[in-house]
Amino acid sequence: MSLTEFFTPDSVAVIGASTNPQKLGYAVLENLVAGGFSKRGTVYPINPKAEAILDLKAYPSVLKVPDPIDLAVIVIPYLHVPDALRTCGEKNIPAVIVISAGFREAGREGLERELELIDIAKEYNLRLIGPNCLGVIDTFTPLNASFSAGTPPSGPMAFMSQSGALGTAVLDISLAGRLGLSKFVSLGNKADVDEIDLLRAWGDDQNTRVIMIYSEGMSNGQEFINTARQVTSKKPVVAIKSGVTQSGSRAVSSHTGSLAGTEQAYHAAFRQAGVLRAESMETLFDISLALGYQPLLQGDRIAIITNAGGPGILATDALERSGLSLAQLKIETITTLSQHLPDAASAANPVDVLGDARADRYQMALETIIADPNVDGLLVLLTPQAMTEIDATAEVIGRLSAEIDKPIITCFMGEAKVDSGVDRLQKYQVPNYPFPERAALAFKAMSDYRQVLSRPKPKYVEFEVDRKTTQQVFDKVRGQGRLSIGDSEARQILTAYGLKIPASELAADPDEAVEIANEIGYPVVLKIASPDILHKTDVGGVKVGLESAEQVRDAFELMFYRAQRYLPQAHLWGCLVQEMVPPGGLEVLIGMNRDPQFGPLVTFGLGGIYVETLKDVTFRIAPFSVQSAEKMLSEIRAHAILDGVRGEPPVDKAAIIDVLLRIAQLVQDFPEIVELDINPLMVYPKSQGAIAIDMRLVLSK
Amino acid sequence: MSLTEFFTPDSVAVIGASTNPQKLGYAVLENLVAGGFSKRGTVYPINPKAEAILDLKAYPSVLKVPDPIDLAVIVIPYLHVPDALRTCGEKNIPAVIVISAGFREAGREGLERELELIDIAKEYNLRLIGPNCLGVIDTFTPLNASFSAGTPPSGPMAFMSQSGALGTAVLDISLAGRLGLSKFVSLGNKADVDEIDLLRAWGDDQNTRVIMIYSEGMSNGQEFINTARQVTSKKPVVAIKSGVTQSGSRAVSSHTGSLAGTEQAYHAAFRQAGVLRAESMETLFDISLALGYQPLLQGDRIAIITNAGGPGILATDALERSGLSLAQLKIETITTLSQHLPDAASAANPVDVLGDARADRYQMALETIIADPNVDGLLVLLTPQAMTEIDATAEVIGRLSAEIDKPIITCFMGEAKVDSGVDRLQKYQVPNYPFPERAALAFKAMSDYRQVLSRPKPKYVEFEVDRKTTQQVFDKVRGQGRLSIGDSEARQILTAYGLKIPASELAADPDEAVEIANEIGYPVVLKIASPDILHKTDVGGVKVGLESAEQVRDAFELMFYRAQRYLPQAHLWGCLVQEMVPPGGLEVLIGMNRDPQFGPLVTFGLGGIYVETLKDVTFRIAPFSVQSAEKMLSEIRAHAILDGVRGEPPVDKAAIIDVLLRIAQLVQDFPEIVELDINPLMVYPKSQGAIAIDMRLVLSK
Repeated sequence: MSLTEFFTPDSVAVIGASTNPQKLGYAVLENLVAGGFSKRGTVYPINPKAEAILDLKAYPSVLKVPDPIDLAVIVIPYLHVPDALRTCGEKNIPAVIVISAGFREAGREGLERELELIDIAKEYNLRLIGPNCLGVIDTFTPLNASFSAGTPPSGPMAFMSQSGALGTAVLDISLAGRLGLSKFVSLGNKADVDEIDLLRAWGDDQNTRVIMIYSEGMSNGQEFINTARQVTSKKPVVAIKSGVTQSGSRAVSSHTGSLAGTEQAYHAAFRQAGVLRAESMETLFDISLALGYQPLLQGDRIAIITNAGGPGILATDALERSGLSLAQLKIETITTLSQHLPDAASAANPVDVLGDARADRYQMALETIIADPNVDGLLVLLTPQAMTEIDATAEVIGRLSAEIDKPIITCFMGEAKVDSGVDRLQKYQVPNYPFPERAALAFKAMSDYRQVLSRPKPKYVEFEVDRKTTQQVFDKVRGQGRLSIGDSEARQILTAYGLKIPASELAADPDEAVEIANEIGYPVVLKIASPDILHKTDVGGVKVGLESAEQVRDAFELMFYRAQRYLPQAHLWGCLVQEMVPPGGLEVLIGMNRDPQFGPLVTFGLGGIYVETLKDVTFRIAPFSVQSAEKMLSEIRAHAILDGVRGEPPVDKAAIIDVLLRIAQLVQDFPEIVELDINPLMVYPKSQGAIAIDMRLVLSK
Repeated sequence: MSLTEFFTPDSVAVIGASTNPQKLGYAVLENLVAGGFSKRGTVYPINPKAEAILDLKAYPSVLKVPDPIDLAVIVIPYLHVPDALRTCGEKNIPAVIVISAGFREAGREGLERELELIDIAKEYNLRLIGPNCLGVIDTFTPLNASFSAGTPPSGPMAFMSQSGALGTAVLDISLAGRLGLSKFVSLGNKADVDEIDLLRAWGDDQNTRVIMIYSEGMSNGQEFINTARQVTSKKPVVAIKSGVTQSGSRAVSSHTGSLAGTEQAYHAAFRQAGVLRAESMETLFDISLALGYQPLLQGDRIAIITNAGGPGILATDALERSGLSLAQLKIETITTLSQHLPDAASAANPVDVLGDARADRYQMALETIIADPNVDGLLVLLTPQAMTEIDATAEVIGRLSAEIDKPIITCFMGEAKVDSGVDRLQKYQVPNYPFPERAALAFKAMSDYRQVLSRPKPKYVEFEVDRKTTQQVFDKVRGQGRLSIGDSEARQILTAYGLKIPASELAADPDEAVEIANEIGYPVVLKIASPDILHKTDVGGVKVGLESAEQVRDAFELMFYRAQRYLPQAHLWGCLVQEMVPPGGLEVLIGMNRDPQFGPLVTFGLGGIYVETLKDVTFRIAPFSVQSAEKMLSEIRAHAILDGVRGEPPVDKAAIIDVLLRIAQLVQDFPEIVELDINPLMVYPKSQGAIAIDMRLVLSK
């Protein structure tokens, strides 16, 4: 069902319209009138006690309105909201905004009331925004169905906010003129309409060039990723997520679990969806302005024009730190610049037109540089010096920007004197940033978005695996009242999913251990096998490089002695005798932790002590493509180690990618797996494969 | 010599004072008049052709002025500046500002002219600011001896800028009202007066609470560190350094050299000096405002008051990311808040006073929370909602801030409606930030500065060493026309400076190698010894774990064969036979790279392949204290490895610190050492010491 009626209704009813200007029910009605909607469509104040409000005929109930109603706004005390919603259903109103608070956010009873709203909405097949929200604005309709203070100016940015209060701040910023909005939705408690619905609706909205999201949490992460991925190939989506303190309540027993949290899940999800993540509110606005008002940045080569050396250096620093590059101007460009600039000027990028540059000199430089095919984007810096023509220079920049299809952004530094110039730039939709570092971040976002657009079509693989065996292991473990699976049982699962593992067998006593070791061939590894011991090394439960029957026997008995002494309650199955894998491998970690919002969060990182101390890991939400798996390898800080350093050969990256994809498949096939660690996966030189040495896995309750 | 005359002169001469309002010589004179100085002191326009300018009697030369002159401002074409400066000397003017450009910045001839100015200044014992600068302002005197557009408002911030143009932007920001300046100096080419002189002068200035620096480079790094260290124990110094692209021109041959650059040197220098480094221009202003206008933050426990949940979460995230903590309010505080706040409000930190909070509710919460001894600082958030009393709330905050000695900063989010509130906050010197992330950075800077103030008295050590032997090695190497010192020669230096090294001797042939190995005892290590091979492993020039005479012989011959084949031009001394150090050590790197501005930049980091790939290293400029050396160990990202992970014992940190301090002494004793690597230093468990396995060293030409 589309959300059309929320944004372009022909008629709007305000249930709880008030005659008292102090009340929200009055404010909403006033906005419908002052915001221009009442000239385009019909507004029905619903108030049993009033004849008319703001010169609009009032009705005691929506059911008494003779014509159909597209949209209702409910702004009455919470106790009466369910009944009001039901009458909306009976009137066949397709879209309802519930502004009233007193629901999920107000505790248990409120939650029950909210669930009632959801039921009513389903029963009558109507869509609901809110409850506990500020309302909805569409500046193109125009429709202001909110209690906002004033209606923001029109523009290409659509903003959705989970926080109504933050919404008021956004609207106040917009009212000041810098940020033009196409649509604004305060999502409130998201009883029905959520970010995914709005993304879908706004993805096709002709008036919206950029979608901005403020979110505190999501309920359907996988669908968000899928929807956002489609939308981001049409227009940029910029989001800020608050709430790092939302740490999971479930106790974490794996390495992966301790590394992966909400923060990492969002980071992975946004990246996979092509959503640009803003690190701060300021950045959210800064980058949206550049994306909304300027054309696509076709490459990363930026030219700087400045009337001051210092800021030029700052801008250069900031651009390079952001991963962009300074454009290498063509000889012809430099020659032309040199001919027209004073001797002391710099005709190489950053181009310094000198402190006494007036608007004409800026214009010459701008026109010359923007025509250079080596330049993808232009950053114009200005400091208010004695000769500087601030307004005229802004005018020159604005006109040029309107003509050409390369992005131009400015950094007019200062405040008192440059303000009028900044206003003029705004008229031409040239985003201005007061400091070069912020301008650099805007260019970086434009570059990031170009990369989103140029994503290759994702390639997904499915492996032939043995689900049945895996299910049997799980059933057996659960049958024994356990939830965690250690080494000896995990090997069956790994084999079932096509991973290589070392030859290995469980020995119940020292004699059997020696027998198995003789079969496997020395040296061997001995590991204590117990459902109760997850961290074997902590109790001396792993011995490597055992060279003889005698050493195997000694190690077995010592392990049993220690385990019985330090963990007397642990049930001991025996020891696993394992083939000693060849030397020369690199230890890596592959794991999974199931995120409550996004599902299986798969981890890759270096193994050994470094994964714990440096947390040099990267994440993807499964399912992910082959290209994503490949990218994970290059994302860890120590990725150069995979390519071989100090004369070491490069490792078998294909084998790591294969394991990542197989594990992604495993955790999708079995949603009951909540945590999983392969640590270490021993990776050998190119085309020599990888062996999963140890695995642990936790099932859901 | 003090700089008093630059800031509080009784008389000022303007050499080049002009009657033409388009000229800088007019602007300077006008600022002296309009800025208020002419009411306090005497202004002498110097112009051979004018009788009077701006109603001030003009003189053809300073020598014709009957009374003494404290300060002269020269603003005439560059060719005449040296002569003008000389007449200033003859007139015994102690302080001269040269605004004119056309010196060092203008090429070779300009540089010669600038050197002439320096000579004249020395000859006449006068101090010089500039050339090529904007001038000097002191708002308390008041004195505006610059060609700035307008005089900034008075305040506690003193700003020095190497870039005049950036200075104009700073002044324009100040003119807008948010940033009050005590002093402003445009340093220009720094022919004489530089950052160090101003730091010294402003450290004792009663009108200055914060010193702000924009710098592009320094000439006397060590003196800067020493001076700034003294000043920062009196008042905060905040600096921004531009120019990451200043990469050294000298080819780099060591690991340390490839890790250490200008960027790292400044980072270390600022930290050692207690200078707070701003990552961007915006941050420079943001943190200076907090430090200048608010009292010291006595602890890191911050309370948040907000009228909106979302921004409260953003602020919490940002504070925690900045290393601050949310204050745990006392039970009494929470009880009081609960009694006075509506039920739906949150009385725990972050305290949510709800969207309908008016000024009185803010006031109650503010007064209650600020009185809580568990609260060190207060962040007040406000979003402009329907009931919000923006101005009245600002008033309440401002009054409270004026009364109490805990810092309060605000985040009034929005723009159009909140502006008047922000103005009111400014009147009370409460810094406002439009977004919570910027407020969090301001608190972080306050916290950082408290830590600067609580630095312990630095403890320096001097070791008894054998300088003579070291000098002899250098002399010998230089005598042979070499500059780089490898393993076999380096061992003498290491021993001379008290480092432990493995037993080792040079063997010229296989027989001798076996003989030495027999003496040392097996296993041994064999390393090719050649002045031409710095990276031995690259040519298979290192073999470890040789167990017998036969293995030693084989390894020796193989190394020679390979070295002769792959590096036929290399001069081979033989092979070093070395004691095999005990297993179980952790490889770390200690190195030094001589920075052109700050001197010996000493590096510490993890060794092995990780130092190259992760660049997990930290830096200090020598000399540094014992405490600094201790701190270096905790600064690397992987510092937990030093404390022992996965059951490994902690390493001998004292031994690492000892080596760091001895190396710092070595590189100070011998400024001719330009690069040095000890890689690896093998560190053993606590109190078992460290052994320097390999060292390389490069001497200056």
